[in-house]
Amino acid sequence: MTPNGWGTGGRMCEALPMDIGVLGGTGPAGRGVATRLASIGHQVTLGSRDAGRAAGVVDELRARWGDRVAGLRPGDNEAAASATDLVVIATVWDAAVPTAEEYAGLLAGKTVIAMANGLHKQGRTFTPVLPPEGSLAQAVQAVAPEARVVAAFHLIPAAALGDLDHELGQDVLVVGDDDDARTTVLDLVDTIPGLRGLDAGPLANALGLEAFAAALLTVNLRHKGEGSLRVEGIGPRRTPPTAPTAGT
Amino acid sequence: MTPNGWGTGGRMCEALPMDIGVLGGTGPAGRGVATRLASIGHQVTLGSRDAGRAAGVVDELRARWGDRVAGLRPGDNEAAASATDLVVIATVWDAAVPTAEEYAGLLAGKTVIAMANGLHKQGRTFTPVLPPEGSLAQAVQAVAPEARVVAAFHLIPAAALGDLDHELGQDVLVVGDDDDARTTVLDLVDTIPGLRGLDAGPLANALGLEAFAAALLTVNLRHKGEGSLRVEGIGPRRTPPTAPTAGT
Repeated sequence: MTPNGWGTGGRMCEALPMDIGVLGGTGPAGRGVATRLASIGHQVTLGSRDAGRAAGVVDELRARWGDRVAGLRPGDNEAAASATDLVVIATVWDAAVPTAEEYAGLLAGKTVIAMANGLHKQGRTFTPVLPPEGSLAQAVQAVAPEARVVAAFHLIPAAALGDLDHELGQDVLVVGDDDDARTTVLDLVDTIPGLRGLDAGPLANALGLEAFAAALLTVNLRHKGEGSLRVEGIGPRRTPPTAPTAGT
Repeated sequence: MTPNGWGTGGRMCEALPMDIGVLGGTGPAGRGVATRLASIGHQVTLGSRDAGRAAGVVDELRARWGDRVAGLRPGDNEAAASATDLVVIATVWDAAVPTAEEYAGLLAGKTVIAMANGLHKQGRTFTPVLPPEGSLAQAVQAVAPEARVVAAFHLIPAAALGDLDHELGQDVLVVGDDDDARTTVLDLVDTIPGLRGLDAGPLANALGLEAFAAALLTVNLRHKGEGSLRVEGIGPRRTPPTAPTAGT
């Protein structure tokens, strides 16, 4: 438990280490999430369309962080999509859906994190770019229907995630239709020092997370500093009621 | 300036008191915002379709808060829409657009705050209900094209707004296409103790604010406590660059 009350939230971490793959791992978001997940003891395959480029990035990250990223290894996107426990789609936003479609077979049955925001920048303004499905996460789900898609990590700057000397202090809203997959990701977020996972419901709410990112990034452009999202006054997750809408 | 750093933000308040109207002032959101704005010295017309009902609610609020709401008076919605400085549309969400349309003539040229979220609740889940225009605020703008529509106050519980003994401590993202109107609302928010206005850009970003509300309300259902939004690490508004896209 960190002094600010964020942190592991008292949850158990017996499942560590997980075998995690990051698709599009050489970009800023991918490096950030791969580095941070490796730093808490997971086996992370940093994938890229170009395995050579992935190897170069992993060499760089090892040179910078040494043993702190001992679990990090390079691979192509196919190797990353073959990770057994969790796959993160961390490509640039407009590649998220085609990448999910390409590896849909390997993603079937797995917990898959979609972290992309569609963004249009003009001057001091970001506005959201959303697909016909509502959100990119829902579009990812549509092309990989057997994946258990969870959307998370929209509002954390990639640079902060990837800088292990930077102390995080943020809340991460997590949404997804599969209760087990969403819980897996909430628990994973809670094990990252400085982060706290908040259960924001079904994948339909990815729209709010993705579109809110444009608003928050605009605040960053128009105010001094860089914003981190916190939701104050919120306690631990409640135990779900038993089978609220079971049957039929 | 409150001890937590929220508050007036050092801004000047020479324009006080403003003449403010609240359409749909008898519902929870309307009572809340009317009470809070009256409490900081504004002249506030609490409007309703039924002026008698507005009078009853104002009597109630005066009985509860006495001189703290001295500037509060009842009226019909037409009287509220006739306020000279600012009109707040605080009806239930599905009445926001028809109400704006009905009073579009009176709203022309005025700063108009749209605070509605379209919400669908099922079990422990809220999801957003959005019109074809993208957000309710944009739909309000479409039916009242000469109003200077600003969206704000989405994420503050009505009960907290209306309870003057409840110390607020939240950030309020504010969006709108008219720079002066958006600045008016940002300044107004900054004068409410415990609130801070954050400039989140154009009205297109109302989509993110409205849809994020569904996600945050779902967090409230699934965690103990009640969440307040804060954006940490953010400082004062930057001075806008001179005429970034002027000309043509």
